[in-house]
Amino acid sequence: MAQSPYATLNPPRRILMGPGPSDTHPRVLAALGAPTVGHLDPYFLQVMTETQVMLRQLFRTKNELTLAVSGTGSAGMEACVVNLIEPGDKMVVCVNGVFGGRMADVAGRAGAQVTVVEQPFGETFPPEQIAEVVALVKPKVVGIVHAETSTGARQSLEEISKIVHDAGALLLVDAVTSLGGIPVEVDGWELDAVYSGTQKCLSCPPGLAPVTFGPRAIAAIEKRKTKVASWYLDMTMVRNYWGQDRAYHHTAPINMNYGLREALVLVLEEGLEQRWARHQKNHLALKAGLKALGLNYAVPEGKQLPMLNAVLIPAGVDDAKVRGMLLNEFGIEIGGGLGPMKGKTWRIGLMGETSSPRNVLVLLAALERCLTSQGAKVTPGAGVAAANAAYAG
Amino acid sequence: MAQSPYATLNPPRRILMGPGPSDTHPRVLAALGAPTVGHLDPYFLQVMTETQVMLRQLFRTKNELTLAVSGTGSAGMEACVVNLIEPGDKMVVCVNGVFGGRMADVAGRAGAQVTVVEQPFGETFPPEQIAEVVALVKPKVVGIVHAETSTGARQSLEEISKIVHDAGALLLVDAVTSLGGIPVEVDGWELDAVYSGTQKCLSCPPGLAPVTFGPRAIAAIEKRKTKVASWYLDMTMVRNYWGQDRAYHHTAPINMNYGLREALVLVLEEGLEQRWARHQKNHLALKAGLKALGLNYAVPEGKQLPMLNAVLIPAGVDDAKVRGMLLNEFGIEIGGGLGPMKGKTWRIGLMGETSSPRNVLVLLAALERCLTSQGAKVTPGAGVAAANAAYAG
Repeated sequence: MAQSPYATLNPPRRILMGPGPSDTHPRVLAALGAPTVGHLDPYFLQVMTETQVMLRQLFRTKNELTLAVSGTGSAGMEACVVNLIEPGDKMVVCVNGVFGGRMADVAGRAGAQVTVVEQPFGETFPPEQIAEVVALVKPKVVGIVHAETSTGARQSLEEISKIVHDAGALLLVDAVTSLGGIPVEVDGWELDAVYSGTQKCLSCPPGLAPVTFGPRAIAAIEKRKTKVASWYLDMTMVRNYWGQDRAYHHTAPINMNYGLREALVLVLEEGLEQRWARHQKNHLALKAGLKALGLNYAVPEGKQLPMLNAVLIPAGVDDAKVRGMLLNEFGIEIGGGLGPMKGKTWRIGLMGETSSPRNVLVLLAALERCLTSQGAKVTPGAGVAAANAAYAG
Repeated sequence: MAQSPYATLNPPRRILMGPGPSDTHPRVLAALGAPTVGHLDPYFLQVMTETQVMLRQLFRTKNELTLAVSGTGSAGMEACVVNLIEPGDKMVVCVNGVFGGRMADVAGRAGAQVTVVEQPFGETFPPEQIAEVVALVKPKVVGIVHAETSTGARQSLEEISKIVHDAGALLLVDAVTSLGGIPVEVDGWELDAVYSGTQKCLSCPPGLAPVTFGPRAIAAIEKRKTKVASWYLDMTMVRNYWGQDRAYHHTAPINMNYGLREALVLVLEEGLEQRWARHQKNHLALKAGLKALGLNYAVPEGKQLPMLNAVLIPAGVDDAKVRGMLLNEFGIEIGGGLGPMKGKTWRIGLMGETSSPRNVLVLLAALERCLTSQGAKVTPGAGVAAANAAYAG
């Protein structure tokens, strides 16, 4: 036996408070390491069925075509776009952050005639703006991000859904960061196609993308005149594997699906409403603490996501040094800004397992040390005290 | 806490002797369950670097653009095709099984003008046939399958590579089932783009696709006039994450990459040549045993893959009943036939961890019981004895 050139795998213990992945529950890690079975094994088919039933509960939908795409959240985005869009189709994409921008890019590659509507990073879209553009463009699909991971802004969807449907279009929603942390009412809001990721509020490692397609989306897919551009993501074939036929399409990522199943069991054990409430409670405590440390949110009050807290980096404070000190001294990961927010914001995630009072207080204590080391004037203990007051109050 | 609606995850213990996934080593399972870190964590970046160094050793290449695509083998196929092909490009695809057929489908969706050359399932392509078609078509890319998982046929590549390059085309190779089990000499044979999967001879669960792109392929990608059709699989962006910049593209499947790293360490600890020899030795013993049980290979002698043994189902024997009995009584998974081979062949995998004398002997003993239960005339003990003789001799 040759000597292994590499040390045994031994990842450092982090508290994952960035924009995802979030902390993984030990039960999910154990599930990932369960013995592999075949992708057509009766046991795995049952895992798929259970996963679908639970995903429908999470998405609050009866949609039959609800499953986990064999790729990360961006593969889920691409799966939704390429199945709904045929070359030449008109699509409106709402861009107020990096992930809206990504959707426009994906749509263009799929051959859509893309109309981009914009809001500044950190802002959201008023219904009137969408009404105006759909009246003008008459698109087949409108794409919008529910929870912009790059800015922390929370988009209202219910009214926009009505506008989009009144115009005869389909509404495609990015719920990568929202699913499991705030309500995503697929049937209640009549969302036609929705994708998410596993590594945010579901607290399963990245690698799968839950998606759901409603009746209007299915009808559009069934009316296609051209093949879906991606073989791998073609729902007309994937649905035969996840549907009753269980016909082989591609070899599903077995152990990743074990992990997702366990993560979903944990969500339902907690209860979806309780989970939303927990995310909100920890967000309010974190916000109180951050404000006491002199940090302001990048998103206006009332539009802030509980699981993704983007705050402005104070003048004179070195972005990279603070994040490096948090990681290397305290084992805490937070995220930097993306796109035009780079160097201007930090993104503090409170997603899934990560969203706990312990993590809020540890972060505030550690961040106080980092800010102080950068010469910022911070009242000692103010952040932790304010968070504790929020929890008490 | 709500009562969980589902039993604790507890997959049955299988011996995975189908066309993949193969058995997973306990060290790989442990790696999958290691604590998650962020996709830009210095520790994960080091895992990526080590994975790339080891993948280059496996592919026998110096290609810088060597990495694991965040999807299964079919995503690797699609990644290679969509990066090399622009709409209107000519591509020749060699189809002698299901996976060649899949490549032609993927190429058509990418906008290629596809010319299919065929051989019957179980056969391989003589160099003259390729020479004739490339002279006629003058394609940009020729796609061919090294190890046809649907038939068990082994394609020689060295001479074809010369022919393809003399015609100014690129050679794209499917090495999903061959990598780690038989030689795949990317630099030696001058293969331009190669994709594989993790769940075959690398014995990591499905979920990632190792790929490598050589200098001619890179040049073709850099000369593109259009964007790659898939955002998720666009190597011009993915390479900035796996390259020196480590620029964020999508969130990599962290724990799957832990598993792949550990699987690669296991391959290199064994030694690549030793691993090839082990696959060959167990294949020869299995073949001797199967012949003693009266089973004949679906592929001519000299063209058989050691890791994928396709045998003809004897007349009067029920395909589904035998596979069901193997699975339910003996915990052994073997594969059925795909496409036109459905109901006509069994596919017995001896891939990676699965390729061991123990598994060969257990399968032969169990298969004897299954065949006997179906009324087939089998000399008791003949299969095991023949395999043991092959090992001894």
